[in-house]
Amino acid sequence: MVSKRIQDMPFSSIRKLTPFANQAKKEGKFVYHLNIGAPDVVTPKAFFQAIKEADLDVLSYPPSQGIPELLEENAKYFQKIGLNFTKDDLVITNGGSEALLFALLATTDAGDQVLTCEPFYTNYKTYFHEVGVTVTTFPTDVKEGFALPAREVIEKAITDKTKVLLISNPGNPTGAVYSKEEVRLLGDIAKDHDLFILADEVYREFIYDGKEFTSFASFEDLADRVIVLDSISKRFSACGARIGCTATKNKAMQEALVKLATGRLACPYLEQVGAVALYQLPDNYFDQVREEYTLRRNCIEAELAKIPGVVTSHSTGAFYIIADLPVEDAEDFARFMLTDFQDQGETVMMAPAGGFYQNTQVGKSQVRLAYVLEREKITRACQLIGLALEEYKKR
Amino acid sequence: MVSKRIQDMPFSSIRKLTPFANQAKKEGKFVYHLNIGAPDVVTPKAFFQAIKEADLDVLSYPPSQGIPELLEENAKYFQKIGLNFTKDDLVITNGGSEALLFALLATTDAGDQVLTCEPFYTNYKTYFHEVGVTVTTFPTDVKEGFALPAREVIEKAITDKTKVLLISNPGNPTGAVYSKEEVRLLGDIAKDHDLFILADEVYREFIYDGKEFTSFASFEDLADRVIVLDSISKRFSACGARIGCTATKNKAMQEALVKLATGRLACPYLEQVGAVALYQLPDNYFDQVREEYTLRRNCIEAELAKIPGVVTSHSTGAFYIIADLPVEDAEDFARFMLTDFQDQGETVMMAPAGGFYQNTQVGKSQVRLAYVLEREKITRACQLIGLALEEYKKR
Repeated sequence: MVSKRIQDMPFSSIRKLTPFANQAKKEGKFVYHLNIGAPDVVTPKAFFQAIKEADLDVLSYPPSQGIPELLEENAKYFQKIGLNFTKDDLVITNGGSEALLFALLATTDAGDQVLTCEPFYTNYKTYFHEVGVTVTTFPTDVKEGFALPAREVIEKAITDKTKVLLISNPGNPTGAVYSKEEVRLLGDIAKDHDLFILADEVYREFIYDGKEFTSFASFEDLADRVIVLDSISKRFSACGARIGCTATKNKAMQEALVKLATGRLACPYLEQVGAVALYQLPDNYFDQVREEYTLRRNCIEAELAKIPGVVTSHSTGAFYIIADLPVEDAEDFARFMLTDFQDQGETVMMAPAGGFYQNTQVGKSQVRLAYVLEREKITRACQLIGLALEEYKKR
Repeated sequence: MVSKRIQDMPFSSIRKLTPFANQAKKEGKFVYHLNIGAPDVVTPKAFFQAIKEADLDVLSYPPSQGIPELLEENAKYFQKIGLNFTKDDLVITNGGSEALLFALLATTDAGDQVLTCEPFYTNYKTYFHEVGVTVTTFPTDVKEGFALPAREVIEKAITDKTKVLLISNPGNPTGAVYSKEEVRLLGDIAKDHDLFILADEVYREFIYDGKEFTSFASFEDLADRVIVLDSISKRFSACGARIGCTATKNKAMQEALVKLATGRLACPYLEQVGAVALYQLPDNYFDQVREEYTLRRNCIEAELAKIPGVVTSHSTGAFYIIADLPVEDAEDFARFMLTDFQDQGETVMMAPAGGFYQNTQVGKSQVRLAYVLEREKITRACQLIGLALEEYKKR
């Protein structure tokens, strides 16, 4: 009796092992969560303070598009990073998730196709099923740092049903950051094939090694075909606020997005008030955060390099790294770590990378690890993965 | 380039006149909002207090299904009103809106049909377009208090594509409350035609004249085909919290709903903490609220009765009343009130009822009024409607 679209929808690979993790915790094990991009960086106090100070008698519906103060601050933020968005170009959403839902609904009809790279963020699949679109992908390879393939390889994945190019940059789950040339190439392809670009750029502050970030929205000739998907979740370590936004210069598209926002009435008021305060933080806030994540990235790469047979790419953005493990079935191994393994009462939860691929065979031996924990914890977690691999092989 | 599904989606009739209201305000007019069910009843302080006391360093993702404390309290609330739901039967959602979205996605595939009464809550249409289903309706009439028609009239609207019966009881926009016999009749029809029942019962505390509320979930033989759609928005005058839930005893459906919740990661954490405190309010909280709304209902009915040519039904639930106005096009009149009318600098915003009908001709002369303001304001607003009707006729 459950609809076919939801029956066919895969369970999020980030959380599908959660029942096993919960069972492990019940049994007294301590679980290091490398499965989910939930940073342990402290959420700026300003967020909570602003909410505490919000003095109101009646918590009524805020405007559907978002409260004016947040639209204003969010637009200022975009302008500060060189993107020409005003408050009229934005819609505040329930996290980046709703931004993606709205953008997909507004750009595609059921039966259309979405183009993205392989591997891609697993939760995208939820929305492909919800809105009834299929996905075609072009491959990128862990051994080549998940760089873009040649133009013709990308174009081979485009059909007459392809309406949208959906790209996360910096990449989740790859940690790859596309160069200006790569972003431009994708933009040219989108132009030539008349595709809308859904630019998931929620990790744009998380770029290391002095690499530069190029937004799809920075090219004037693409302005009319770009919807930026954004979120404060990672930017300010405020995942539980569920505040995101869409940003587009395309007037018709903006109207469609506002219509969708109006249909669901509003986003929570207090969380929007908190988000205003976050956008008013001093500019150097990100510098500190970036420094911390650079150290964590260095730490996880060094630790993973110590484990025999593990192959990773260099992660230059976001806070994810794909690790190719010396096992046949990484999901089976990830489950093993939760159900059958422990060292001094501790173990690790990882996200099997198979769910991040459309062609699940390629990712079958891979996991996605989020370097969102303190360095000591990352070190210990990697040690545990190494120990577990030894035990797993012996079975 | 905007998708057909969103192009075809009507703009919410509750808010479609908002640009005109904003313009009126800019020109210095005071606007009484009878268009939207946004109560001016004070939100219980406990909500804000609980959020202020929530002491946390990192605002991370709460569990997708909802925080355990809220699931627990929400289940207790259901049990208190005689509905046999445990925390495992619930999913916390972003308002009742997301509850409807999830329930529709889980019970229908694109191309399926939803059965509901005419008129029905206009924002349902947003979701019919989003999920790609069509709607068939059976008529109910303002002159008969929007009571159910005969069984055969209802069954005439069922086709082999009908998968779901979606009913709001107490009725939005009608203010009608179905008797136990009426609910049972709908349940029998759903059983005979193997339909899922989406029971939008968010107004169940708002019932007047000593009428009794019957939930679809109170019939054991229907348990496996009912999903209750719920929300704290009206119940606790907390519309801006955006906290709702789904409740079902159908295990497969619950699994599907959890899968959908997992795909969008989580609902906001702090608003859930506030909601816990609301469910811990003393039981007599609703008595006071009900008393206040009874007075408001009495007030709006008495005031509307004074206006020549206005026909209303008796509103026994929710806080809406449909008024049939002595005009040809109620939307044109509602716009007129915002653009061309004022009395001592004041006017009224109403929701044209056409958007609440599938057959818009029937509702063309009607408006939906929400009696959510203090009585003095309701009195003045009705006076303004009367004055405006006189002026409108003279043009």
